[in-house]
Amino acid sequence: MIKKLEQNLATKFNIHFNDPKLLDEAFTQASYVNEHPNQGLKYYERIEFLGDAVLQLTVSEYIYQRYPELPQGKLSRLRAAMVQEDSFSKFALECDFDKYIRLGHGEEMAGARQRPSLLCDIFESFIGALYLDQGKAAVEEFIGQVIFPKLDQGWFDHAVDYKTSLQELLQRDGDVDIEYVVINEVGPDNDRKYQVEVRADNKKIGAGAGSSKKHAEMQAAQNALNELRQAGN
Amino acid sequence: MIKKLEQNLATKFNIHFNDPKLLDEAFTQASYVNEHPNQGLKYYERIEFLGDAVLQLTVSEYIYQRYPELPQGKLSRLRAAMVQEDSFSKFALECDFDKYIRLGHGEEMAGARQRPSLLCDIFESFIGALYLDQGKAAVEEFIGQVIFPKLDQGWFDHAVDYKTSLQELLQRDGDVDIEYVVINEVGPDNDRKYQVEVRADNKKIGAGAGSSKKHAEMQAAQNALNELRQAGN
Repeated sequence: MIKKLEQNLATKFNIHFNDPKLLDEAFTQASYVNEHPNQGLKYYERIEFLGDAVLQLTVSEYIYQRYPELPQGKLSRLRAAMVQEDSFSKFALECDFDKYIRLGHGEEMAGARQRPSLLCDIFESFIGALYLDQGKAAVEEFIGQVIFPKLDQGWFDHAVDYKTSLQELLQRDGDVDIEYVVINEVGPDNDRKYQVEVRADNKKIGAGAGSSKKHAEMQAAQNALNELRQAGN
Repeated sequence: MIKKLEQNLATKFNIHFNDPKLLDEAFTQASYVNEHPNQGLKYYERIEFLGDAVLQLTVSEYIYQRYPELPQGKLSRLRAAMVQEDSFSKFALECDFDKYIRLGHGEEMAGARQRPSLLCDIFESFIGALYLDQGKAAVEEFIGQVIFPKLDQGWFDHAVDYKTSLQELLQRDGDVDIEYVVINEVGPDNDRKYQVEVRADNKKIGAGAGSSKKHAEMQAAQNALNELRQAGN
């Protein structure tokens, strides 16, 4: 099974493992080891422990660099949306990783192969194995194909879209007119800052600033949301 | 203040920042930025977000390599003991980081400079700045001086010492005779496996295996603890 995984990785991602034993370990569940004792097999959990931390850093670093205006709270929300079971299990399926997991008979019968928590674990353990075998740059390249394009495809927009959240909150009990108004622009063209107010039915409910109107609006929406929530909405 | 921090880092750790602005950012709290508007200052939260993930990975990788026998559950417990506010705030004090934080007046008066949560944040943001300025190897070297020696000093033993935890639990209500017995040894000399039972007053209460007697005993103790706790102890 691992031979086929190696072929799949080579064809799909041009990844060639120096030490295929790491792949063995990354794709083997404890239930399989228990059914094949005395073979010196290892199961994926330790590598998964490492892979989890590798993913956290790789994703954190990417969004930190890519969104220089995003405050820490939004970075955390975005990372949480990207680094979670639901996302990772989908990525694992997309990479066909489900086909190569070594499971014990009972787990197989119980449908573990399609279980999101297992698929998520395997995605993390694969990343751990890749990191051990080829280092951080190889992980970045892989994730650059599998995860990061999904940012542009809107997979994680819900995590950072404060304008929509604000609209939903305000229009919960009926129509409200929401308006974003640029009230100030400062700085030279190459370092322009915008100050924006958000108004509900012509009343100011929040303000924000940023290096683009969009960012300033997003910040104003976030600010308004915080105010409204503190007021008990 | 940042000049003195640079001197401190050079003297104590032989660290020289290429971009001292990263240090400015890492040691500046939002309250200070609020009191000094229009200076284009940044506060530490974004860098802290990154530093947190850098620390997670650096510590994970170190204990993964150093304890090749430790199962994932114990690695997680050990990491949690190392990567936490209480530990980081102590490390920050040890590095004299408290002296260099830029705080707003109100926060200063409120005693924020000695607040563990702030010290922890600053430790993480410093790591983020070091990572951005000089990469992962520099962080590993710094942590190799500040955190890793504490493993040998026993700072985190409580996180992995199941034998002591078991003893404490069993002897809560009086003296109990606890014994670890090797019941089997298999494999060649260079890949020997030990199976160990732990007995309380001559009754078996757990079993474990490992590549050394010590690890097998630790696992037996953990197994016994799990059993006892499930039984409501």
